[in-house]
Amino acid sequence: VSPATDVLSPDRLAHELRAIGTARYHDKHSFHARLHSGRCTRAEVQAWALNRSYYQIRIPMKDAALIARCDDPDLRRIWRSRLEDHDGTTGADGGIARWFALTDALGFDRRDVLAGRGVLPITRFAVDAYVAFVRERTLLEAVASSLTELFAPTIVQHRLESMLRHYDYLDADRLAYFVERPRQAARDADYALGYVQCHARTIEQQKAVMAALTFKCDVLWAMLDALQHAYVEPGRPPPGAWVAAP
Amino acid sequence: VSPATDVLSPDRLAHELRAIGTARYHDKHSFHARLHSGRCTRAEVQAWALNRSYYQIRIPMKDAALIARCDDPDLRRIWRSRLEDHDGTTGADGGIARWFALTDALGFDRRDVLAGRGVLPITRFAVDAYVAFVRERTLLEAVASSLTELFAPTIVQHRLESMLRHYDYLDADRLAYFVERPRQAARDADYALGYVQCHARTIEQQKAVMAALTFKCDVLWAMLDALQHAYVEPGRPPPGAWVAAP
Repeated sequence: VSPATDVLSPDRLAHELRAIGTARYHDKHSFHARLHSGRCTRAEVQAWALNRSYYQIRIPMKDAALIARCDDPDLRRIWRSRLEDHDGTTGADGGIARWFALTDALGFDRRDVLAGRGVLPITRFAVDAYVAFVRERTLLEAVASSLTELFAPTIVQHRLESMLRHYDYLDADRLAYFVERPRQAARDADYALGYVQCHARTIEQQKAVMAALTFKCDVLWAMLDALQHAYVEPGRPPPGAWVAAP
Repeated sequence: VSPATDVLSPDRLAHELRAIGTARYHDKHSFHARLHSGRCTRAEVQAWALNRSYYQIRIPMKDAALIARCDDPDLRRIWRSRLEDHDGTTGADGGIARWFALTDALGFDRRDVLAGRGVLPITRFAVDAYVAFVRERTLLEAVASSLTELFAPTIVQHRLESMLRHYDYLDADRLAYFVERPRQAARDADYALGYVQCHARTIEQQKAVMAALTFKCDVLWAMLDALQHAYVEPGRPPPGAWVAAP
């Protein structure tokens, strides 16, 4: 095979990226299956939501870090819609406000959630690694690391339905985040996929794109590993982590 | 004087910050006087606009860097309006689009402007130092470094009038950036001043705020120094810098 033919076509690149999701996206994790099948205790759902909050709150910081390194006003403007989706335009709208409806329902104080109190260290390490990746790698890799959203719409729709069915302390208002999110994720994923198809022009760049998506899958997987290890019987929450009231 | 009384009142802090502007804001620079009094040649106006473009294009990157380090959704959302002001909501609005109307009129290709081709190295060093300051210092210092906007509305209004009067190759459409900017700058400066008054609670923090504003004044001053040195007769543009066609 000559070097020239090593370069993947845009369609082939998309196929390879989807294959990474099939193998590595966190819907394959046993904690995910547990959550969606109704086997999680209330404390496990609480722990999942609290730890996921750390991710939710840092996603706009990650997106701003991408904008901060981008000297193309067009890409900055398009990427800014992600900030708007999460932080909203008033204090009461936006993904984080909707996310708080869930943590409220689960009995967490919003100040504790914002401060990340009781979040598992592994959650921090994984999420902080993601923000650092976006800040430090190439812009192409930073964009590519968002491509887990290719796989999000289906899982999120399924999550909404299964959590409504299994956990009677949650209702559609509490899970409003998952109502809004699939449409946003699909739009963002389409854009990011088109971007990497257009800008990854050598096999080295295409491999970097695939590695970035693999890295991001690892981040999401590690977050569920941490929950599984700490909270699923026999739970082993580390010092300082949230524990359910006895 | 006891340590407790060392802390400045909010009003006193504002007074000290305004005094820094009086002493150090770039409206005191001789290039500024030259530009506003109509003594700049067309080539000098071109050089000013081209170099200022590097600043304009990086301001949203600076603001995104601030958002990227901020875990408070409210502050992120308020600060995001600065991104919107500069990058716009379509490709045709926003401060950078209005700025292009000026560089278009002065004969620059937008791709060259976006790429920073021919920009003076000192301009780059100064502007890059500003972006790095916002990325690396405390959030309080990052906010404080924006406070030169306290002094911008007056200078900008004066700039619009004097440039319209003196440079017949510019008109109100070409200078639209300066029509929109004072209102935005006044709103942003009010917010940032209130923020530092509220959050700088020790004299050490207040001194850091004053140092941040001093630093930012130095950035703007250095940009005009570079223009003065390179382009005002006898001009000495360094290798690679833009020069007027003979």
